[in-house]
Amino acid sequence: MALPPAPHRFFASDNFSGVHPSYMEAIERVNAGHVVAYGGDDATRRAAVLFRELCGLDVEVLFVFGGTGANVVALSCLLGRAESVLCTTMAHINTDETGAPERFLGVKLVDVASTDAKVSPADIRSAAGALGNVHHAQPGVVSLTQATEMGTLYTVDEISAVCDEAHRHGMRVHLDGARIANAVVALGGDAETFRAMTFGAGVDAVSFGGTKNGMLNAEAVLLRPGLADGRAGFLRKQATQLPSKMRYTAAQFETALATGLWLETARCANERARELWLALRDLSTLDLREPAVNSLYPTLADPTRSELQEWNFFWDWDLSRDQVRWMTSWDTSSEDVQLFAAGVRAALAGVR
Amino acid sequence: MALPPAPHRFFASDNFSGVHPSYMEAIERVNAGHVVAYGGDDATRRAAVLFRELCGLDVEVLFVFGGTGANVVALSCLLGRAESVLCTTMAHINTDETGAPERFLGVKLVDVASTDAKVSPADIRSAAGALGNVHHAQPGVVSLTQATEMGTLYTVDEISAVCDEAHRHGMRVHLDGARIANAVVALGGDAETFRAMTFGAGVDAVSFGGTKNGMLNAEAVLLRPGLADGRAGFLRKQATQLPSKMRYTAAQFETALATGLWLETARCANERARELWLALRDLSTLDLREPAVNSLYPTLADPTRSELQEWNFFWDWDLSRDQVRWMTSWDTSSEDVQLFAAGVRAALAGVR
Amino acid sequence: MALPPAPHRFFASDNFSGVHPSYMEAIERVNAGHVVAYGGDDATRRAAVLFRELCGLDVEVLFVFGGTGANVVALSCLLGRAESVLCTTMAHINTDETGAPERFLGVKLVDVASTDAKVSPADIRSAAGALGNVHHAQPGVVSLTQATEMGTLYTVDEISAVCDEAHRHGMRVHLDGARIANAVVALGGDAETFRAMTFGAGVDAVSFGGTKNGMLNAEAVLLRPGLADGRAGFLRKQATQLPSKMRYTAAQFETALATGLWLETARCANERARELWLALRDLSTLDLREPAVNSLYPTLADPTRSELQEWNFFWDWDLSRDQVRWMTSWDTSSEDVQLFAAGVRAALAGVR
Amino acid sequence: MALPPAPHRFFASDNFSGVHPSYMEAIERVNAGHVVAYGGDDATRRAAVLFRELCGLDVEVLFVFGGTGANVVALSCLLGRAESVLCTTMAHINTDETGAPERFLGVKLVDVASTDAKVSPADIRSAAGALGNVHHAQPGVVSLTQATEMGTLYTVDEISAVCDEAHRHGMRVHLDGARIANAVVALGGDAETFRAMTFGAGVDAVSFGGTKNGMLNAEAVLLRPGLADGRAGFLRKQATQLPSKMRYTAAQFETALATGLWLETARCANERARELWLALRDLSTLDLREPAVNSLYPTLADPTRSELQEWNFFWDWDLSRDQVRWMTSWDTSSEDVQLFAAGVRAALAGVR
Repeated sequence: MALPPAPHRFFASDNFSGVHPSYMEAIERVNAGHVVAYGGDDATRRAAVLFRELCGLDVEVLFVFGGTGANVVALSCLLGRAESVLCTTMAHINTDETGAPERFLGVKLVDVASTDAKVSPADIRSAAGALGNVHHAQPGVVSLTQATEMGTLYTVDEISAVCDEAHRHGMRVHLDGARIANAVVALGGDAETFRAMTFGAGVDAVSFGGTKNGMLNAEAVLLRPGLADGRAGFLRKQATQLPSKMRYTAAQFETALATGLWLETARCANERARELWLALRDLSTLDLREPAVNSLYPTLADPTRSELQEWNFFWDWDLSRDQVRWMTSWDTSSEDVQLFAAGVRAALAGVR
Repeated sequence: MALPPAPHRFFASDNFSGVHPSYMEAIERVNAGHVVAYGGDDATRRAAVLFRELCGLDVEVLFVFGGTGANVVALSCLLGRAESVLCTTMAHINTDETGAPERFLGVKLVDVASTDAKVSPADIRSAAGALGNVHHAQPGVVSLTQATEMGTLYTVDEISAVCDEAHRHGMRVHLDGARIANAVVALGGDAETFRAMTFGAGVDAVSFGGTKNGMLNAEAVLLRPGLADGRAGFLRKQATQLPSKMRYTAAQFETALATGLWLETARCANERARELWLALRDLSTLDLREPAVNSLYPTLADPTRSELQEWNFFWDWDLSRDQVRWMTSWDTSSEDVQLFAAGVRAALAGVR
Repeated sequence: MALPPAPHRFFASDNFSGVHPSYMEAIERVNAGHVVAYGGDDATRRAAVLFRELCGLDVEVLFVFGGTGANVVALSCLLGRAESVLCTTMAHINTDETGAPERFLGVKLVDVASTDAKVSPADIRSAAGALGNVHHAQPGVVSLTQATEMGTLYTVDEISAVCDEAHRHGMRVHLDGARIANAVVALGGDAETFRAMTFGAGVDAVSFGGTKNGMLNAEAVLLRPGLADGRAGFLRKQATQLPSKMRYTAAQFETALATGLWLETARCANERARELWLALRDLSTLDLREPAVNSLYPTLADPTRSELQEWNFFWDWDLSRDQVRWMTSWDTSSEDVQLFAAGVRAALAGVR
Repeated sequence: MALPPAPHRFFASDNFSGVHPSYMEAIERVNAGHVVAYGGDDATRRAAVLFRELCGLDVEVLFVFGGTGANVVALSCLLGRAESVLCTTMAHINTDETGAPERFLGVKLVDVASTDAKVSPADIRSAAGALGNVHHAQPGVVSLTQATEMGTLYTVDEISAVCDEAHRHGMRVHLDGARIANAVVALGGDAETFRAMTFGAGVDAVSFGGTKNGMLNAEAVLLRPGLADGRAGFLRKQATQLPSKMRYTAAQFETALATGLWLETARCANERARELWLALRDLSTLDLREPAVNSLYPTLADPTRSELQEWNFFWDWDLSRDQVRWMTSWDTSSEDVQLFAAGVRAALAGVR
């Protein structure tokens, strides 16, 4: 069976995408001459100021290289003695970081089952039962992902409820925001939305993603003031996440925050996912749900699945249920979406 | 007292420098469209091939974000159970990585005193006395730095002797090559020189520096085939050093190795240091030694020291002996050198 | 309501019991004069020989202080680079060791749900799906508990099947035998039974419990020959589990193995649990299952539960289902059982 | 050459000795019936009260199995984020614990050279230079050993000076007291002496040794109130140092403190060392210094050294200077001393 021409972009992951031209320009912009290394430069100072404005709070800003690094640094800032981290079974820190948190932090991750990849206040209450029992690691940090690994979203109220419950038991809250921009766009689309779902809701530390949103290996950790005993920067270095030429990381965030590009790119990705859903939702075999952000989780059995993956690669998700993941990115075009949808239709038609 | 105009570049560190235009072009070159993340792209494959040609050996090539990360990944690949790492007291892994090796690896660093920042075969023989004693961490890895933290060089024969002694006791050898290009230039200047001082001499893993030599947060770990049980890539991820958009790191190394730029930039830095030495060696108060690579370690007492640091920043080195460090980089110009030398002369003259 | 006189022993845990008189004698027996510390003494040598005879294999024998220590040492001997440990959610290493494995080993525990606290070959096959994926910790060790934390038993065939499946994927098998004697008694009661369920079935390392079975803070790790690169003893010291006065630990095991006392004491505990079951099984509200070893898991709601715990303390087990645990030990008498049963009956009668 | 009959005890180490009869009685004393495990028993409570009286302070008391465990637990209670431990090169934690502190704590030990195994305030001032520099692990804890590994003693004033200097820089002080009783006897011999050299001087945590002083695998960690965020007990469990049958450890300390036996046994050991010195000090070839506690460090060259070690084993100390160590213990008799001295004389005479 013949498939139509493949799209120019994959629907595999937003980290298959390149770097947005404006971020390339940002890198060029700060490339003149010598500046103090390790963050003692003006671009780093300016980007930190912009982050503090975004947060409406005097957060500590730590630029880092990658997402796993951001999570490890953030957790190292929040964890106390003999504590554990509560997260869902599907959390990126639990499944996709090769045990980096356990290795670097020496910490137990207590993972709770969840159909929508979200932690609930009841999960926290249940975990808090271990407090005071010397045979159990002490629940110290709750780690949420927004948008979640299943493409779902916590509402602002849900995050508030989680933070309230966590704080009630003396725990702190980490938000893995590898795709925080996609979530902000979906829930309001402005700085106020970001504030409300993070520090406003009570979150203590945010891994703020840049790479999946069009940047060149750039992430940031935002930390509520007064945490980590003033040692956050030392922990970043111990975690091997202190960029010596930090100006290039910082400059990208400066552009993102000063121009709003971080929301614009995320909006593109979200819209393309919605277009893909609209283009294929009539195909009941796919069992598509309306996307909240930039990913779809269709059901797709072999041989169609393999045939389509060879044609235009995407990842398996849960093969026990024939589930795959389609993901759009900041540079996915509407034409890519239409070509992809046509391919899916053709492959499914060939099967029938 | 009036000082002349300050140079355009600092003499503080080569990591104060920016990114070489050719590396910026390399980044632009690979920025089109989607590619598989985490190293499944063509630029990564091509750069790895070039590294294998450089080494004359089927080394495993692991691109990473930073120098501390490279060292931690390399050591994690070499260390066996209950082992320690032997290095000098001045080793970067011992003094300038905030304990990252101990934290991530859970390993003891056994540091030996050294006036020239070099490990000797006798140091290894002495450490080997601990082998078999259950109360001592077992010497497992020797870590050398080339060029050293004192700007000195091991000859190829010295590295061979260290490797032979280490291997005789079942130990492996790591070479921290944050400034390996400067050493290669100083000792021969071609690929054969590199081979001879690393894998040819018996080194088992190399941290190959890019950042200090003009790249944008790019380092590589080169690993002798057959080590780390095939798990080197997993250890890199655990160490939070796996770049998702690896093409940008790899592309820079592709340019470096294909064009010889890595040696050209290092040669510039070395030559400028030599020019600075020539310009000031008559000033006996500085106690300057002829530089082997791109750094000088003058004696400079206050208030001259502080006055000059305010004028054009550089780092203190060992204040117990009024010692500072001057370092040139790939972009230091001869004009910078002359201006800097003039400033030093003026400041010293003002004191007298 | 009046309860009868309380028993002389608790039904809380076998570690509430004291030290068997024969083990006290063993300690006295070796208390004369000076011997080489850290295991270089004759009692240690003799006990190791007895363990090798028991195993029918030239196992490495490591005496240690405690059960968590034994597990950590055993796992440290089995784990390779970037690996994880597979166990059930109820595993002692997962729930009752305060995260010691994660903290000391830097390892991820991958816990699988299980109603009977047993790992199945299917669990291993499923986990093996992560092999080769750089984003996942690599399944390296399967940890079983025999008897399990739920008082259930693996048959020898079940352990063989688990070991076969694990080895098929290059994984090793640890058996947490904190109550291994109770299991051996239940499944045959002789040395051959022990061999069959451990090294004969393919287990690679055993935590062999002594403390819960009447000893004074004495456990042993038994290791299949050829593992841990000859470094098991160093790992024990790193884990702070090397007793300097090892003769006292070893002497107890010498008595246990030479006289068969380890099986005799376990048989007492098992028989008392059975007597308790016989005495109360008519009370359907308790929902008692016939015990395989020395514990029962009755359903017991408040206020009866609290009333009985005040009268003669025992532990809650799963309060979400009003479940508690009753456990007998080597020194529980039949009279204790009858008194305890009478108390339970009286309390339940008072409620109705 | 014929040597006289060997002594009944070795002069190798105080951990070659057995258990004092009174401690055996203490173990028997608490061996009746069931008590709550993990320290919830009366013996543990009573021993803790005695320790608080000894300290004149409401210290937290943690009984543990061994000396390395005690040190690791104590340090884990004192260390903050990204900190290092300052100690001498000869410190037990640095040389004789197989890297257990680095492995468990992920911490850098910064070791300073010292001829008498003592840390000075100047060492601390020098280390404090790293405070605030993000590239250096932050000096957080100073670890002293009293009596030191060289058999020397800090005066109370010296400990006070170290603590003052440490606290001035925000650091805490750990005292490794594996042989604290020998030090107390040497410097005054009563509870007040102990108080003065520990918490009175400003020490924050003490590893209080029992094993080398006649106990059965029994040590304690004493912690100044308010440290470790109330998590000391959890850290002990994570370090695998929580004895389940704690009553036997506690009972020995109860006897020790209630009867003063801990000082009596240490006094015996110290006196025997002095007797040995008196018996041999005329032999200038031995280069004996008057012992402060229970060890001598003679110069003894081969073949005499080996001949004597075969006759009655003792340890080499620093073979680069032909130095060995002779150590007495609580059970060394004056007859042992005279026999040993006679052997040494005979061996040396045979050489001449």
